[in-house]
Amino acid sequence: MPMLKDPSKKYKKFPPINLPDRQWPNKTIDKAPRWLATDLRDGNQSLVDPMNGDQKWEYFALLCELGYKEIEVSFPSASQIDFDFTRRLVETPGAVPDDVWLQVLSPCREDLIRRTVESMKGAKKAIIHIYLATSECFRRVVFNFSEDQSVELARRCAALVRSLTKDDPSQSGTEWAFEFSPETFSDTSPEFVVRICEAVKEAWEPSVENPIIFNLPATVELATPNVYADQIEYFCQHITEREKICVSLHPHNDRGCAVAAAELAQMAGADRVEGCLFGNGERTGNVDLVTLALNLYTQGVSPNIDFSDLKNVIKVVERCNKIEVHPRAPYGGSLVVCAFSGSHQDAIKKGFQMREKEGKEYDDYWQIPYLPLDPKDIGRDYQAVIRVNSQSGKGGAAWIIQQHLHLDLPRDLQVAFARVVQEMAEKKGRELLPTEITDLFRDTYSLTQNPRYSIVDYSVTPDRSSSPAPPEPGKTQNTTNLRKLFTGVISIDGVEYKLSGRGNGPISSLANALRSVGIDLDVQDYKEHAVGRGRDVKAATYIECTAAGSKQKVWGVGIHEDVILSSLNALLSAASNFSPSRQGTPRISKAPVGGANGVVEVTDIINVLEEKADGV
Amino acid sequence: MPMLKDPSKKYKKFPPINLPDRQWPNKTIDKAPRWLATDLRDGNQSLVDPMNGDQKWEYFALLCELGYKEIEVSFPSASQIDFDFTRRLVETPGAVPDDVWLQVLSPCREDLIRRTVESMKGAKKAIIHIYLATSECFRRVVFNFSEDQSVELARRCAALVRSLTKDDPSQSGTEWAFEFSPETFSDTSPEFVVRICEAVKEAWEPSVENPIIFNLPATVELATPNVYADQIEYFCQHITEREKICVSLHPHNDRGCAVAAAELAQMAGADRVEGCLFGNGERTGNVDLVTLALNLYTQGVSPNIDFSDLKNVIKVVERCNKIEVHPRAPYGGSLVVCAFSGSHQDAIKKGFQMREKEGKEYDDYWQIPYLPLDPKDIGRDYQAVIRVNSQSGKGGAAWIIQQHLHLDLPRDLQVAFARVVQEMAEKKGRELLPTEITDLFRDTYSLTQNPRYSIVDYSVTPDRSSSPAPPEPGKTQNTTNLRKLFTGVISIDGVEYKLSGRGNGPISSLANALRSVGIDLDVQDYKEHAVGRGRDVKAATYIECTAAGSKQKVWGVGIHEDVILSSLNALLSAASNFSPSRQGTPRISKAPVGGANGVVEVTDIINVLEEKADGV
Repeated sequence: MPMLKDPSKKYKKFPPINLPDRQWPNKTIDKAPRWLATDLRDGNQSLVDPMNGDQKWEYFALLCELGYKEIEVSFPSASQIDFDFTRRLVETPGAVPDDVWLQVLSPCREDLIRRTVESMKGAKKAIIHIYLATSECFRRVVFNFSEDQSVELARRCAALVRSLTKDDPSQSGTEWAFEFSPETFSDTSPEFVVRICEAVKEAWEPSVENPIIFNLPATVELATPNVYADQIEYFCQHITEREKICVSLHPHNDRGCAVAAAELAQMAGADRVEGCLFGNGERTGNVDLVTLALNLYTQGVSPNIDFSDLKNVIKVVERCNKIEVHPRAPYGGSLVVCAFSGSHQDAIKKGFQMREKEGKEYDDYWQIPYLPLDPKDIGRDYQAVIRVNSQSGKGGAAWIIQQHLHLDLPRDLQVAFARVVQEMAEKKGRELLPTEITDLFRDTYSLTQNPRYSIVDYSVTPDRSSSPAPPEPGKTQNTTNLRKLFTGVISIDGVEYKLSGRGNGPISSLANALRSVGIDLDVQDYKEHAVGRGRDVKAATYIECTAAGSKQKVWGVGIHEDVILSSLNALLSAASNFSPSRQGTPRISKAPVGGANGVVEVTDIINVLEEKADGV
Repeated sequence: MPMLKDPSKKYKKFPPINLPDRQWPNKTIDKAPRWLATDLRDGNQSLVDPMNGDQKWEYFALLCELGYKEIEVSFPSASQIDFDFTRRLVETPGAVPDDVWLQVLSPCREDLIRRTVESMKGAKKAIIHIYLATSECFRRVVFNFSEDQSVELARRCAALVRSLTKDDPSQSGTEWAFEFSPETFSDTSPEFVVRICEAVKEAWEPSVENPIIFNLPATVELATPNVYADQIEYFCQHITEREKICVSLHPHNDRGCAVAAAELAQMAGADRVEGCLFGNGERTGNVDLVTLALNLYTQGVSPNIDFSDLKNVIKVVERCNKIEVHPRAPYGGSLVVCAFSGSHQDAIKKGFQMREKEGKEYDDYWQIPYLPLDPKDIGRDYQAVIRVNSQSGKGGAAWIIQQHLHLDLPRDLQVAFARVVQEMAEKKGRELLPTEITDLFRDTYSLTQNPRYSIVDYSVTPDRSSSPAPPEPGKTQNTTNLRKLFTGVISIDGVEYKLSGRGNGPISSLANALRSVGIDLDVQDYKEHAVGRGRDVKAATYIECTAAGSKQKVWGVGIHEDVILSSLNALLSAASNFSPSRQGTPRISKAPVGGANGVVEVTDIINVLEEKADGV
């Protein structure tokens, strides 16, 4: 037993918020928030190797393309690279779409604010964002500030920004907005947050048309996400002139709940969310904008962001951030839109089949087990939805065969083939590639070449020697009512045999012919369907047989343009699956007898096979 | 502008739960739940390459070591590997600790249930877990079952398990427990879930001592996490004999909210959580047990799981799952317990300093900006907490210097050195390693070798030629009150000069001596502290100077066992930072004059340097 540490003295429980009239648990999210992408600032500053100017440029273009209208591009007073990048954006004609706001961040220090405003000179739309840490811990440890001193500094800095921007006639070419973040909001008393924001609001004097942005960050996520929602609802309830305020969220993911915090806090009244693609950012990252947007999308709410080519987004983000999207990241992860386990695969397959049966189109109501989002909506295809390893069942391999070979296997054949697949997967100890599975299928059912049996020549003719089947009422009797006579040459282990047999159809007549060389099969199940269309159409035939006197069932598969050859090949495919080379135990009771010229003639009339085998 | 898709017809909003008397938002989590680790089942079945028997064995041992008492080890009816692994656990003496329950999963099918129970024969403590998908979508698409048929099947299977386990006298050596999962719970009407669970409960007949486990999975996460909490609270309110039931959670992470869902649902009344380490599992994974446990821990609640050696956990999990823990995964991610940005680094550094100043021990109340968890609690050290790239400020590099060279740099020296560091980081375009930063520091301040100046020989003696400083009241006058005379040999660019100078102390007397060869420095700031303890103690000296007539400030650093040499070296270090080789502009106004034997004698008495430079 490990010695468990008792954390009760070292860590305190986060105190709950007093919110007697809590409303947010009754709400839902009915529209997209305003988004602010801070990949180039909060995201970038947390990278092991930050982006260079060109990478930032590419990333900025991506964000615009996706539909982001507010983009925090830098911390210009902190680094020359950031300042230069900001100027490049402002000064390059056409770099920033007319409806996109550039946002820049500055601490509450006069010289840095001046430098920050300078970086935006000449921009079309600019948001100056200043922050001041407000929690008791930060004020004590980092700044040694009282509450009053903090309020005074925030007010003074807001006034400074105002004087340098919207109050400066020389800056009138720019549309200015202002954002204030009481940093460490999540760890600050809600009353003090309201107090400092009231002071900043008074200094800036927002209007309904140009609201002030109060960004309320969970700088560090410190409690369950309902607490953040409570804090936001408290703020929305208590701040005055709510209509002149845009309440913005900035959740970090220290407790793994940033997405939840952003969603519950929107229900609590927030208007705007700051985050990064795939949750990049300090430590555990900022809230993931991809997940938030697609969470909305799967609830039928347009996020106003276009993730229809998510693969490309991943490519750019991975290149610039040098951090891979995790295989299990919601929506973007490589393993997210796929299933390995048998029951999942089966359910997904049935879901797609029902969708097809019901004639649903791409845009129709989506309901597929285990797939909350249509993979095509984010630019993925269905082929990769099901992947096969030793944990997979019949549905998985059958799906691969259907997707790649267009064969719709009967249920029992799925079960039989799944066993072969599982054996291989366990032996290899890894996932099987689709090509391995299709090769295994072709090999198992002798689709490319039957190792023992092949038809050299054949004809199936009406068997005029037999009495015709009685004509159906009202129909004229003709040759199709007659039993069939198979005559042909079959190669068995390299020796050609001339065989003939009679039956109700080609399969039973061939089966009877084979019996004469000791291959004694009873057809138990049969299915056929067309593969492809028009000129290239082929027939696929599936036959399940037992060896006479045995309970062992085997399947055979045949595919051919000639529907009769397809059936005959399927039977020979089954026959070869009884052969020693494949099963390890000889099943053929009698070896064929060779004639003088290597062709053996055998004629034998035997029992009628089950009717269902000859409905061809 | 991208063409944005309108998802309103394709996807429906998840309908809210009718829960008029909702209680959970007022609750907090005050104790750890029962945990069930399903890494070896739900986790394993979703891996590209599932674990082999030995990997499962190693993983199982890890889970026991960490403190998990309920472990779902397999899906024994689905694969021979799983069956064999289960038998190996049961049959190997000592493999399963006495207080650990083995759990195995089976679908609701008689033959598979029989095989599943067989796999547990002889186990000490066994939980048989059966599942049946209950949502309208699954019943329609996958099973074509009515509600009545589903209830009947579940009841029958529960009775079967009962007859094969606790009602079978031959199985009395095993302590049996039973778990039923209405799979796709999150997508099933709450009323129907209660109905089917009542039927199962009746069939099993649980007791207060041996409660039935109702596991309520968010098989696919379909809504915001408050909805899951509502569903759980509804279930807890409506199921009868609540005291005989263990309500278990099994959240998946499709919307990125599994952790939140598990936490809010615990507040809503759940007793138990099923999940995987680092959130492995189908698609986006099961809920992450590491995050849940450490979230509790940072609230002062013991999770009863020991993650004090998280590195080792990561190592085993990564090896067995073949999936890397994401660098931003809460708690476990490599980038989580570190900061790159200047302001973060500064705050963290101040936090540690205050902690030290306040004399806090390892176990004392933890409050450090940006670090909700003491890295040492999960086996990490503080050195890696701060990492330096072009986004970093003075605090970062200073932290590295402090951690590696044990030098506590004055604030202005931090600022000056940060500029040098940032320049290098921008040039390299990547993170700087601690060794690169310490090398850069040594090089910048000539700690290993001063490229231009060195002291060949020196003495500092009382300057008896000057009038003594007046004695302090009540103290006898002695030589320490006298001004100092520096005499010595300095090597400048390879030429040795015999110099002397007078001042209030060694630094000012050397400064005055240097002035005679044209090196004219004014000391602006000065700090000294001891490095190390006992025999190996050294003095570290930091000196900020301006060149006479210039505003440019440079720092010099000296470290030496001889406290005077430390000061003298610091001054020469500063002098060399004015030299052309380093700054690009010559700052020394007059070249030294060489004498006959290569040693130049200069005697010069100059102005007194600022007093503060000689408080040594």
